[in-house]
Amino acid sequence: MEKPNIVTCTAPVNIAVIKYWGKRNEELILPINSSLSVTLHQDQLKTTTTVVASKSFQEDRIWLNGKEEDISHPRLQSCLREVYTLAQVFGVEGELSAIARQGSGSACRSMYGGFVQWLMGQKEDGKDSVAQQVEPESHWPELRILVLVASAEKKPVGSTSGMQTSVETSALLKHRAESVVPGRMAEMIEAIGRRDFATFAELTMKDSNQFHATCLDTYPPIFYLSSVSQQVINLVHRYNRHYGETRVSYTFDAGPNAVIFTLKQHVPEFLQVVQHFFPPETNGGHFIRGLPVKRVFLPDELKQSIGLQPMDNGISYVISTKAGPGPCVVDDPAQHLLGSDGLPKRTV
Amino acid sequence: MEKPNIVTCTAPVNIAVIKYWGKRNEELILPINSSLSVTLHQDQLKTTTTVVASKSFQEDRIWLNGKEEDISHPRLQSCLREVYTLAQVFGVEGELSAIARQGSGSACRSMYGGFVQWLMGQKEDGKDSVAQQVEPESHWPELRILVLVASAEKKPVGSTSGMQTSVETSALLKHRAESVVPGRMAEMIEAIGRRDFATFAELTMKDSNQFHATCLDTYPPIFYLSSVSQQVINLVHRYNRHYGETRVSYTFDAGPNAVIFTLKQHVPEFLQVVQHFFPPETNGGHFIRGLPVKRVFLPDELKQSIGLQPMDNGISYVISTKAGPGPCVVDDPAQHLLGSDGLPKRTV
Repeated sequence: MEKPNIVTCTAPVNIAVIKYWGKRNEELILPINSSLSVTLHQDQLKTTTTVVASKSFQEDRIWLNGKEEDISHPRLQSCLREVYTLAQVFGVEGELSAIARQGSGSACRSMYGGFVQWLMGQKEDGKDSVAQQVEPESHWPELRILVLVASAEKKPVGSTSGMQTSVETSALLKHRAESVVPGRMAEMIEAIGRRDFATFAELTMKDSNQFHATCLDTYPPIFYLSSVSQQVINLVHRYNRHYGETRVSYTFDAGPNAVIFTLKQHVPEFLQVVQHFFPPETNGGHFIRGLPVKRVFLPDELKQSIGLQPMDNGISYVISTKAGPGPCVVDDPAQHLLGSDGLPKRTV
Repeated sequence: MEKPNIVTCTAPVNIAVIKYWGKRNEELILPINSSLSVTLHQDQLKTTTTVVASKSFQEDRIWLNGKEEDISHPRLQSCLREVYTLAQVFGVEGELSAIARQGSGSACRSMYGGFVQWLMGQKEDGKDSVAQQVEPESHWPELRILVLVASAEKKPVGSTSGMQTSVETSALLKHRAESVVPGRMAEMIEAIGRRDFATFAELTMKDSNQFHATCLDTYPPIFYLSSVSQQVINLVHRYNRHYGETRVSYTFDAGPNAVIFTLKQHVPEFLQVVQHFFPPETNGGHFIRGLPVKRVFLPDELKQSIGLQPMDNGISYVISTKAGPGPCVVDDPAQHLLGSDGLPKRTV
């Protein structure tokens, strides 16, 4: 029997600082505006995928998080069609981000490490709607990213149907895509290029707020920001106001988790502030995960200057991370999720 | 001694359905867009003002809600200057709404009953930025208004400073004022003219949401919608979806209270729905004030179809009212708040 081909890859998560919201072509997943993201380091967050290919297999099957899914889903189909095409030219890289885009738009930005833009493109067939690295992950070593994981709340509206409703009903979204985002993309790329934290941070906050504003301008309106998100937003602005400079910024996607950008030297104090205003259930060492963080003393003056009412258990835990590389092929065979028979090695 | 002139007036509250947010001239209070409101009936909500004028008085003094205020406040000054001018031509009406505008912008819409527009005007001196009645209060007798008074929460940002920050920082507000509101004003006036509830209601909801979207697009962002407001919004959309038609609409100003517009025949059931999803502290008869409302049976099917988690004590009480007339001169001398000596008759 022929030996099957087994490949395992890990891929990173990315967080947009200029947001993608709305498609101009639903089938090809072509966006109404360009977007820009930071790729998070895979030491803290990653996805793992194993593909097994063999001439002896009778059918295509897929498992997501250990659970078998229907292979006939249109989005899976468009990706798999391209991937098997790829299998024929095994070892030769095509424009992979255009394939990833057809699975989930924003996923195409995870094809590269560091700072990545997804160009909206102009062509009807979407061939120029691709991801490009703006700067590598080594470009800004002081930049730190904190994912504040909000206590579980049900996501009210899925992003696929949500953005479609926004495109159909929000006059502000159309204006944003056409008249606001192009200038912000250029400004953001420049700010990253010169490692100008204040400009990067302010633009990130403004763009997150504007994305959520277009959700509210959707009919019926969509709310992704919870009371926890609002407390994080107020906390960040009051923290920056206390120091008279922009040391910390936030961004929120289609859910209540907050992603914080800051510089390495501000991480210990800001996390102490987070822990003070969101007292965790058990004040143990598991509140902060990922890159180690020193404990520091929190001055009373700072707490009073922020002056918010602490919100119990609003945040479950924090992942402390930084910018990282793009997808990696895993050499260690023990990391394969599927066996040579093409079936999961273990079920979840 | 000369007998002093005593006049007492009552004035109504108005609720905007096309919102005013942002001034193009701070001193004259000239808005960046026209707005449109419904004047609420004074049987349920009103303000009472008594003016006493006498040649023997040495100075100007003013009491608001029984408390003496500093007469030198610039906004009071611009109003008083005009009012005393007026005193000279006592009995002759000038363009009163242009005076009211200089006190508080949206107050000028309370100069008329029924449906009132405040034209933004084009002139530098603001002489054409005046209120006009679009339809009298008798035009749409079936229209009902429910003020859902949210449990006391501190107003986070005052509207005067909030709207100024929005004008300075929100690109979406500029687009709204210039490109969205003019069309909506025309559409709203037409919908009111033909008593088209669905169009009136949907436009009211969209404009409230767009106003709050521009608050969120402000930097730093402003939040006026609380979790109670969000529950009201979801409740209204799910109620309408259940019936497959727009029977109820909401609008929110710079605070958490909701104002509901509906037609007379839907009031009893919708208020029962409100009471079910916002269980009041004491389920007594004081939850609903104003125009009397019949109790009706609430079908389980409707409750399940709405399917929200009830929110205890989110709403303190409801004022049931309708459109009403403009300011009135009070004939009954017992209603005067000031005595002939120019001092308050009683302190609060």
